[in-house]
Amino acid sequence: MPAPFVHQLRVRYGECDPQGIVFNANYLAYFDVAFTELWRAGVGPWQEMLGHGVDAVVAEAGLEFRAPARFDDVLELSVRVTRLGQSSITTEIDILRDGELLIAGRLRHVCVAAPIAAGAKASAVPWPAAIRAGLEPYVVAGR
Amino acid sequence: MPAPFVHQLRVRYGECDPQGIVFNANYLAYFDVAFTELWRAGVGPWQEMLGHGVDAVVAEAGLEFRAPARFDDVLELSVRVTRLGQSSITTEIDILRDGELLIAGRLRHVCVAAPIAAGAKASAVPWPAAIRAGLEPYVVAGR
Amino acid sequence: MPAPFVHQLRVRYGECDPQGIVFNANYLAYFDVAFTELWRAGVGPWQEMLGHGVDAVVAEAGLEFRAPARFDDVLELSVRVTRLGQSSITTEIDILRDGELLIAGRLRHVCVAAPIAAGAKASAVPWPAAIRAGLEPYVVAGR
Amino acid sequence: MPAPFVHQLRVRYGECDPQGIVFNANYLAYFDVAFTELWRAGVGPWQEMLGHGVDAVVAEAGLEFRAPARFDDVLELSVRVTRLGQSSITTEIDILRDGELLIAGRLRHVCVAAPIAAGAKASAVPWPAAIRAGLEPYVVAGR
Repeated sequence: MPAPFVHQLRVRYGECDPQGIVFNANYLAYFDVAFTELWRAGVGPWQEMLGHGVDAVVAEAGLEFRAPARFDDVLELSVRVTRLGQSSITTEIDILRDGELLIAGRLRHVCVAAPIAAGAKASAVPWPAAIRAGLEPYVVAGR
Repeated sequence: MPAPFVHQLRVRYGECDPQGIVFNANYLAYFDVAFTELWRAGVGPWQEMLGHGVDAVVAEAGLEFRAPARFDDVLELSVRVTRLGQSSITTEIDILRDGELLIAGRLRHVCVAAPIAAGAKASAVPWPAAIRAGLEPYVVAGR
Repeated sequence: MPAPFVHQLRVRYGECDPQGIVFNANYLAYFDVAFTELWRAGVGPWQEMLGHGVDAVVAEAGLEFRAPARFDDVLELSVRVTRLGQSSITTEIDILRDGELLIAGRLRHVCVAAPIAAGAKASAVPWPAAIRAGLEPYVVAGR
Repeated sequence: MPAPFVHQLRVRYGECDPQGIVFNANYLAYFDVAFTELWRAGVGPWQEMLGHGVDAVVAEAGLEFRAPARFDDVLELSVRVTRLGQSSITTEIDILRDGELLIAGRLRHVCVAAPIAAGAKASAVPWPAAIRAGLEPYVVAGR
């Protein structure tokens, strides 16, 4: 069984709110960082994807907030691909601090033709083979 | 049947990403604005809640991204309370532009004793009667 | 003497930090909103500028933090053009709450040829006449 | 002569705007990260400062934008203390990419008694000796 991909980051002061905890929307921004780093490990730098004539857009996101992260915490973002479809990818992202699960998340991205014309609707296209091959090692069973 | 609560906002340039569309995490920040404004309409200013000895924290969030919002768009955030539990509240938030549904969201908040001690786990408490009474007019059937 | 241009906005919860005040970087984001709204009043929607073959980029910014803004404050952003150069514009932006000056800011934007090629350095060009004419009514003496 | 303190970070996608470059306000957020890391190196974790009965607030900031940073760039944030006053500290922060200066910044923080009562004005107090001693090694001549 493959190990999940893990990326670390430290909580910034400006990401925390008057409750003294990370403002909820910033976890979704953290997910994006984690997904970008998974992509780098499997496929390469995100922006090179445009060279394949495709881009990826988020279609769905879900977050469960179990316990808050705080300023200066070093967080582990653990990412698993739970489904690699023809033109979509579903990832589950856990945010942990010292092994404690703080946030459990899920993203579904869709592969679309790029560049997306302004005002146009992005249309789903299959993943190029090179991208699919790079992501497959990270596919595991979902929650 | 009660009309949903609607709040308008205009997309800021810095909220958009290199795809030219609102960065996904910012929709969750918009939801927070919409929830705060629903609260103001039904209960009063958010920060007065602390005077009741309670606070509300987000326990779950879900987002479906149907179509992107762009810089300078004027968006309508339509909020419905779909469940008002003993110590929780579930809201559904639609983000529309000219009547087109762009983002469909859902938040579940939990009422907790306040202030929350640093490092402590927030514990759920029932909504104070005054808060419950203010929110009830916005309860409608969910999706 | 022309009145300064004023734009109102309400502080969002997620824009405040654990000190309970607006995180300093967010004032710079507010300045951008204020500048965009001045532009709308004088010239038109910001994104139409690209139709003139030009764009504007920030070259300098300065901020003095006199007193903090807090969650839910309604702020007045007062903008004056203090210099309208051949290819630059300097604005002074005051952020006030109930007439009290909280933040005193200054921005200098430069007009550049658009679109800016990726990786290329933007080169300054003179303001198109229509843009200059729209901004001139807002020119006042600086601090 | 002491070497400047350097902290690295990678530009996140959500920090970039439709021009494809880092949105200007985010550089001020980067400065805050750099200042926090200088503090960690010299004094210790930022939040321990409250144990000394003091906090630090930003009084002034200035930024010159020479060239833009882009998504995925690895940036070097180089921080120098150019003045360590009785109750203030001035830092100059350069943001570089591959040795090229992109952004030149300056911050002035003031030491205030903590905690700051809500609604009260923070009053400047001298730096505690332990904090001063930790910062002194980073004092260099300014620009």
